[in-house]
Amino acid sequence: MERERLLKQIDFIVEIDKLKQVFRQSVITGVERNENDAEHSWHLAVMAVLLSEYAAEKELDLLRVIKMVLIHDLVEIDAGDTFCYDEKANQDKAEREEKAAARIFNILPPDQTGEFWELWREFEELETPEARFAACLDRLEPLILNYNTKGHTWKKPGVNKEKVLKRVEVLAQNAPKLWEYAREIINDSIERGYLKE
Amino acid sequence: MERERLLKQIDFIVEIDKLKQVFRQSVITGVERNENDAEHSWHLAVMAVLLSEYAAEKELDLLRVIKMVLIHDLVEIDAGDTFCYDEKANQDKAEREEKAAARIFNILPPDQTGEFWELWREFEELETPEARFAACLDRLEPLILNYNTKGHTWKKPGVNKEKVLKRVEVLAQNAPKLWEYAREIINDSIERGYLKE
Repeated sequence: MERERLLKQIDFIVEIDKLKQVFRQSVITGVERNENDAEHSWHLAVMAVLLSEYAAEKELDLLRVIKMVLIHDLVEIDAGDTFCYDEKANQDKAEREEKAAARIFNILPPDQTGEFWELWREFEELETPEARFAACLDRLEPLILNYNTKGHTWKKPGVNKEKVLKRVEVLAQNAPKLWEYAREIINDSIERGYLKE
Repeated sequence: MERERLLKQIDFIVEIDKLKQVFRQSVITGVERNENDAEHSWHLAVMAVLLSEYAAEKELDLLRVIKMVLIHDLVEIDAGDTFCYDEKANQDKAEREEKAAARIFNILPPDQTGEFWELWREFEELETPEARFAACLDRLEPLILNYNTKGHTWKKPGVNKEKVLKRVEVLAQNAPKLWEYAREIINDSIERGYLKE
């Protein structure tokens, strides 16, 4: 039993190595190659440690925020990265990701399947302060990368200031100082020609 | 003051994007391209969540373990990855990394410079149960990757069973069940020809 449990955990650790091959729309600074989901998740986790003081909710469970950002994109191993400004692809996103969660989290022993499933659902539902702060980080990181790569993703068709503001709107209520900063770099991006008005 | 603090934190967040370009000796499964430090750090953090039950120390501060593994390789942005079996490169490793820590952590506001510096030093010194468990994960992950990529790194000159066992020795006292598993896959690797006796 004990051995079986460990082997399931190891199988999962090997399975999630695939997250390093799921590429996002954002590019990283310096070399401008697409960022992958594992790198993105790491970046969010460090940001959680650094920026938790800006959460509107003062009694934040930081460990829970970090767990959520670490695992929030695992479903993309099967479901792929869905470009946030692609309305068509977003129509069946929930269904594709639910199916992915069922396969991937079930590799784990039952108690950990439950824990990971709950963390992922909590992140998706945005109903706790931890999930909302995790979402703030998930929106802020690509904004910072875009600002530092001359608006790489924002050059794609159909992206404009209104859509980017809408995308980061979760910051307004849940991390007001970070929202202020986000609006500042969005306005500066317009001036620099990184983003369309 | 407040604005200056946030801008320092953002500068740091942009600076550490470079960790995604620091490549390790291990390759990832599936495509066999070198793993980078950001991906590696993410993998360790998820492993910390999954495997903390195997720590010999039962009163483990999991959040501290995760913080340590998230930031343990940041110094390699300047100091580069030092191959663990390269004795010559390891001679001045401490000095190179100390210098890197001074530059990189000092981008942060002073209190966070202190926090990151302490976490990194704690990880390096192996004197707390959290640091020792973090080290267990840091040794186990490349072992699992090597086992699943037919001993990629172990094909390099000078690597043999004795050196690999020595490298993962920290598991023996600090995570005995994981140590048992590590020895098992090392022995199996010898049989499969992934690693020299």
